Amino acid sequence: MQARDIAVQVPTVTLEDSVATAVRVMALGRLPGLIVVDGQRRPRLVLPGTQVLRMAVPRAYQDDPALARAVDEAHADLFWEELNGLTVGDCVVRGVGRLTSVRPDATLLEVAALMARLRSPLVAVVEDHALLGAVTLDRLVGSLALAGPPGE
Amino acid sequence: MQARDIAVQVPTVTLEDSVATAVRVMALGRLPGLIVVDGQRRPRLVLPGTQVLRMAVPRAYQDDPALARAVDEAHADLFWEELNGLTVGDCVVRGVGRLTSVRPDATLLEVAALMARLRSPLVAVVEDHALLGAVTLDRLVGSLALAGPPGE
Repeated sequence: MQARDIAVQVPTVTLEDSVATAVRVMALGRLPGLIVVDGQRRPRLVLPGTQVLRMAVPRAYQDDPALARAVDEAHADLFWEELNGLTVGDCVVRGVGRLTSVRPDATLLEVAALMARLRSPLVAVVEDHALLGAVTLDRLVGSLALAGPPGE
Repeated sequence: MQARDIAVQVPTVTLEDSVATAVRVMALGRLPGLIVVDGQRRPRLVLPGTQVLRMAVPRAYQDDPALARAVDEAHADLFWEELNGLTVGDCVVRGVGRLTSVRPDATLLEVAALMARLRSPLVAVVEDHALLGAVTLDRLVGSLALAGPPGE
């Protein structure tokens, strides 16, 4: 199998999208991360889902579990609504983040090695700077399990 | 909402299980990671899915993309079958890995802050050293999106 065989179409975001939109896109697509594209829909960055959370959770709560615990339950469900128009671009520090990508003909081993090395559960499938789709950890692991001999 | 409200039951592995079994359990459960339990089913470790891949992909391929590319497609689908009985315990270096967990009454903010801080898309819900369930990134993000005001 090749990356193109297990790639799926995924919704994307841009640097101008709000972090709240990014959270919603990830939720709606049930994605393990997000692909950030430019105005021509060329892929620029792949953000693991936990990195999207890092954008959405105010830093003080990440650094201090006691502070997070002090917020009452009703407000704790809505913390990410209070991002005040913060955009993905605001959070992606210049030079940080990368385009975790493979060619369409990459093997499952190449995809797995890349995900393992870069700790990214999402990989963009890119050809000639165009986004063809994405491989999720879920699809990769499912495909590996199917490829294996049955009954072992 | 609290962690207990969005927790799901997940299959687990032990340190004695093979890495091949761990990959299959993750695939079958469509999980973003794995919870490692001891003989009494007490949770010991939470492994993000990409860390499970790090166990399954021979180190040489992770370090050298050209080497991974040189493996033909048929063999590339089956690389992880050649782990020769390697166990999860063989791969978890002593002291490395941690039990990423919350109490059942933790808020969504607490769960999100923990996932963000420890970069783990899976969190164990633990009470009195017993595993009550797990919160996945998918469930958390979906719950956050549902909790938000509609139509924004």
